[in-house]
Amino acid sequence: VPVRHAVILAGGSGTRLWPASRRAMPKQLLPLGPHDETLLASAVRRAYVLADHQVVVTADAQLAATREVVVDPAVTVLGEPVPRNTAAAIALAAATIIRRDPDAVLVVMPADQYVADVDGLRRAVDRLVATVADHDGIGVLGIRPTRAETGFGYLELAGPADADVVAVVRFVEKPDRADAERYFASGYHAWNAGWFVATARRLLAELDSFLPMTAEAARAIAADPARAPALYPALKAISIDHAVMERTAAPIACAPVDVGWDDIGSWAAIAKLYVPDAAGNTRAADHVVIVDGRNNIIVSDDATVIAAVGVSDLVIVKAGDAVLVVPRDRAQDVREVVAALSARGLQRYL
Amino acid sequence: VPVRHAVILAGGSGTRLWPASRRAMPKQLLPLGPHDETLLASAVRRAYVLADHQVVVTADAQLAATREVVVDPAVTVLGEPVPRNTAAAIALAAATIIRRDPDAVLVVMPADQYVADVDGLRRAVDRLVATVADHDGIGVLGIRPTRAETGFGYLELAGPADADVVAVVRFVEKPDRADAERYFASGYHAWNAGWFVATARRLLAELDSFLPMTAEAARAIAADPARAPALYPALKAISIDHAVMERTAAPIACAPVDVGWDDIGSWAAIAKLYVPDAAGNTRAADHVVIVDGRNNIIVSDDATVIAAVGVSDLVIVKAGDAVLVVPRDRAQDVREVVAALSARGLQRYL
Repeated sequence: VPVRHAVILAGGSGTRLWPASRRAMPKQLLPLGPHDETLLASAVRRAYVLADHQVVVTADAQLAATREVVVDPAVTVLGEPVPRNTAAAIALAAATIIRRDPDAVLVVMPADQYVADVDGLRRAVDRLVATVADHDGIGVLGIRPTRAETGFGYLELAGPADADVVAVVRFVEKPDRADAERYFASGYHAWNAGWFVATARRLLAELDSFLPMTAEAARAIAADPARAPALYPALKAISIDHAVMERTAAPIACAPVDVGWDDIGSWAAIAKLYVPDAAGNTRAADHVVIVDGRNNIIVSDDATVIAAVGVSDLVIVKAGDAVLVVPRDRAQDVREVVAALSARGLQRYL
Repeated sequence: VPVRHAVILAGGSGTRLWPASRRAMPKQLLPLGPHDETLLASAVRRAYVLADHQVVVTADAQLAATREVVVDPAVTVLGEPVPRNTAAAIALAAATIIRRDPDAVLVVMPADQYVADVDGLRRAVDRLVATVADHDGIGVLGIRPTRAETGFGYLELAGPADADVVAVVRFVEKPDRADAERYFASGYHAWNAGWFVATARRLLAELDSFLPMTAEAARAIAADPARAPALYPALKAISIDHAVMERTAAPIACAPVDVGWDDIGSWAAIAKLYVPDAAGNTRAADHVVIVDGRNNIIVSDDATVIAAVGVSDLVIVKAGDAVLVVPRDRAQDVREVVAALSARGLQRYL
């Protein structure tokens, strides 16, 4: 029986949940939900169910904050001197793990997602591990689409997405509206959530083919972590999808699932973590006053009282030195605020 | 020529501009407008144009804050131990002034209003002073209505509101919607802004008739201010309109004006103090980011950045430990927030 090693990718530094998420406070380190649990803590808790060992890859600058969340000393936390996208992070984890366990099976996952049904997820990972053992290929998780989402990449499948395991025909970039509608209607597509399963040996072999400098540097750093600051900055910043998944000759199998997955990619998704009140309002703050308002999402990071009168379907967030007001269905447009602040030289708010 | 004494009533402690105005920070002490001038400072500046001397009546608890605004030592500032509405405040001012100037003409005005056309106001006060000198009556300012407002009391006039001076038939309470429409359409009504002109002697005579204990206490306190804490709490809390204006046999004349008056009674009115941007947004904050939004009013009392995306016609206020979001046309409903906070025992936010 192969031993499973979870690889939790916690290197993100996005601002999609601005103003709560900042450059120095990425999404996975934010306390969210009614229990103020970070997504990273959820990911680690979940990984105990999915794998035997765990490695977390994060930014050097976030090592301390990450270690506050990942308190189990049995979990290895690796730091990247600079962000170099997922291929480099996964190479580093694979090279580190294979030194301990030459037959390791990696279960790679982002740190900043929400999954309601961990048992269902475990069963899907089990299927992928079995498939990978049979074919020495790569297994990817596919999320059965619930809408024609344009914000995710898709997996085009060789058969219907209600199979237990089905071959992947190709990886598809984030589609435009028309393609997203087509994919959603087809029944032959799944969302690419960034989860995959492969042996460390297979993965490093792929990297040797497609990103040899990255594979070599990863092995060198795994042997001597002190070399990371010298070697890491020169690595190509490329995703594992672009570097390997879209180019490999190895078979890729997908386990399509319906496990209550969400990437919490905007404030609108935060509502999934809470039970709304009778008027549909989500109250993620100590003191909220809503008069004649429905379906609002109200967030405050401190004792600030948020009062909303006569407004509905709004996101209202107070976090640190910033306040955001945006309709739920435009929550993605927070990126335009980030761009505007950056353009005005107000990076201190990012 | 009678000497004019402005009486500025600065005893208010409302929360109509919550969360900026609080119990301890009344509207007239808030820095507002592009120059961060308080309405009280504007009132004092305006009173130099309207009168020869000035008395400001405020709460004892606000004496220090008031003196920070009213720096001219020639201006008398009187403190009330407890609020007892306008009749008591005016009685105290009249009794104080008449000791210095038995022939004083009082020009009484609230401290928390905005007037764009001070010259026009001066001409109206001149007419009222002349009328009062002729008839020994009372002169009131009438604001020509610009809408069917239900939030103000009205003056019913004996003639059209475009006269220079016209007799007042009666004082009318805040009307319901139907009556407000009728008053607005009539041309025989003006808003009662709480401004009036009378000699101190006439005013105290009226108070002797209708509120004798108040008149007596006011004279006693004027003679010995140390008696205020003992005498003031027992005074009847009643407005000068109810106590005198609606009951006096003296002639009451109105000077109807169109002087760009506003009582800044809600956040919606704050926009009058600013020049909006090209999209109609009023920016009363250091750092505001508006993406695809029109006609919003954005207020922050510190360096907090306020970002509004895809919303229009909203008021968004960050002040101290509170955030308010309300449509402009419902800005009056902030009182419901105040009531809700009070009901929940969250008076510390008021």
